[in-house]
Amino acid sequence: METMKSIIQKYQHKGISLVEAGATRHRSIFNGLKALAGDQAYCRLSRPEVVIIHDAVRPFFEEDDLLKVVRAAREHGAAGATRPLVSTVISPSTEGCLDHSLERARYRASEMPQAFLFDVIYEAYQQCSGYDLEFGTECLQLALKYCHANAKLVEGSPDLWKVTYKRDLYAAESIIKERISQKICIVMDMKEEKEHAGYLLETVLKNELNHVKVTSVVPCHDGSNIQHIILEQCYSFVCMNVMTTDFQNTQKLLGMLEESNLSVLYPVVVVSVHFLDFELGPLSQKMESLMWIRKFAVEVKKRNILLCGLIINYSQDEQKLQESLRQGAVIIAALIKERNSALLGQLLVA
Amino acid sequence: METMKSIIQKYQHKGISLVEAGATRHRSIFNGLKALAGDQAYCRLSRPEVVIIHDAVRPFFEEDDLLKVVRAAREHGAAGATRPLVSTVISPSTEGCLDHSLERARYRASEMPQAFLFDVIYEAYQQCSGYDLEFGTECLQLALKYCHANAKLVEGSPDLWKVTYKRDLYAAESIIKERISQKICIVMDMKEEKEHAGYLLETVLKNELNHVKVTSVVPCHDGSNIQHIILEQCYSFVCMNVMTTDFQNTQKLLGMLEESNLSVLYPVVVVSVHFLDFELGPLSQKMESLMWIRKFAVEVKKRNILLCGLIINYSQDEQKLQESLRQGAVIIAALIKERNSALLGQLLVA
Repeated sequence: METMKSIIQKYQHKGISLVEAGATRHRSIFNGLKALAGDQAYCRLSRPEVVIIHDAVRPFFEEDDLLKVVRAAREHGAAGATRPLVSTVISPSTEGCLDHSLERARYRASEMPQAFLFDVIYEAYQQCSGYDLEFGTECLQLALKYCHANAKLVEGSPDLWKVTYKRDLYAAESIIKERISQKICIVMDMKEEKEHAGYLLETVLKNELNHVKVTSVVPCHDGSNIQHIILEQCYSFVCMNVMTTDFQNTQKLLGMLEESNLSVLYPVVVVSVHFLDFELGPLSQKMESLMWIRKFAVEVKKRNILLCGLIINYSQDEQKLQESLRQGAVIIAALIKERNSALLGQLLVA
Repeated sequence: METMKSIIQKYQHKGISLVEAGATRHRSIFNGLKALAGDQAYCRLSRPEVVIIHDAVRPFFEEDDLLKVVRAAREHGAAGATRPLVSTVISPSTEGCLDHSLERARYRASEMPQAFLFDVIYEAYQQCSGYDLEFGTECLQLALKYCHANAKLVEGSPDLWKVTYKRDLYAAESIIKERISQKICIVMDMKEEKEHAGYLLETVLKNELNHVKVTSVVPCHDGSNIQHIILEQCYSFVCMNVMTTDFQNTQKLLGMLEESNLSVLYPVVVVSVHFLDFELGPLSQKMESLMWIRKFAVEVKKRNILLCGLIINYSQDEQKLQESLRQGAVIIAALIKERNSALLGQLLVA
């Protein structure tokens, strides 16, 4: 209970009431329903028309999954998401041998979310037996058995799977990283003109990352257009610094990110991009002048912002320039995809 | 068929005979059994006592999983791995509503591998109906139905899951990366003495990566001890170069890796570690002198070897040294875990 309270506070979730869990799945759900019933003196919640039951271990549902079960529950009294069976289901004999196998096409896996008319499911839990509360696993079955609600089965999305094993944690981590890497915002240097470095990189990034939405923005004076992008939950920024000694652009962006609450839930990646013609100036000198990134990175890490530097070879040779831009895009893609804090403050060379 | 042939050739697999697939799962298995039966003129294979049937989409089985089903098949005629059900299984009515749900504890998911006495399963496939071949999914069921083999159910490991959805590919990638990152070999600089930089880093790496086996080796004259480690399939190397201008150690290791076939299946990571007291020499000059790593990295990438450089602050200040070693260990861990080719040739600073 204390852990849940601290999570809610830390991530600033709103509109949540906590209810003590029971010893089994069904007892926990029953406790939740009692709190919603509004027939107890201490209860601050009002009785809903429809209630959704969901498992915390299925974090990747979409709004559409909820809509589908709620609509079906309004019509049928009860509804739940189901998926095709992945493996054949068999019934073992008491000796641990095969008794019989089920024909896979005739059965479905029952997933969550499920939705119910509140009165139906509350009644079902009030009527059901101690055996049900102790050993049952299926809410739709209770609604059918005790309230004759003809539970509608709705096709669920593959994302409704249950995070059960270690491999599921790996998958969950990858899915979250993919979701927050769907948008990249390129913050242009105010001083540069069209056709310059920033726009070249934008073109290459769009080619290399064709599943990602790459947008660019020239910060306006009060930064309101950047703030708008932050509000739209963009977690990946590429910040152009075309002028040799200037890094105001990156600093300004970092300031705005620090002020926002964007990085409360997920780390924000900022790649500070700098240009140098490797044949004109010594790379080492440029790197020396960019060592501030290391110190800055340690600072903004405290706010869950991962800052890296990237130097691109702004060669006069068109082919070399394109090759460096392409490699820069690959590095940016990797930094954004992996979001690995071990690399913060590093200065990478494309 | 051509794709499979090219895969076998590319990855140098031995002892594989290919058989044409059928239109359904059971028809494919039957084709495989026919090829093993040894009763056809063109067949080069001899009839086995026990046959194992497995799905290619379950790549993570252990030898122990095979042993268990083979032993049980010898005794019972048939055996298969099973797992507890993750979701409740339900039977839908013709109207797409819930007909009934199964009590989860009474059923199991049938997984692979399964093993059979060859004569039992071959007989079962010869006897079974066209309907079975077309719509069946369970080999144990055929052995029971047509040969009265009392198939033994064996507890399978969670690793037997079926790679089905995109999330499973994410999980599979993470599992493979984890498996090939279980061993790190630190190749010491021949010139250094005990208590020096290499051993300090080894200690820190062992502390930071407590699930990984970190070993160190001083290369002997003919390199046979390194070759031994390569043969034991170590995919992660940290190569010490304590002498300022010397990188023979890394070059020698890369040469041996290129000669071996180690990187045929998985990429090998090599982190070339260099030391500098940041207060004595300019970091930029050191970086300039290490730019050869970029060119080398492009070369060895062709052999699936990912080379990165790492500079550690060999400070006289004990606290600064420890902090830099610790950060170096974190960077090494990230490079080995992610195995991301976008970072090859980069020079990282701890």
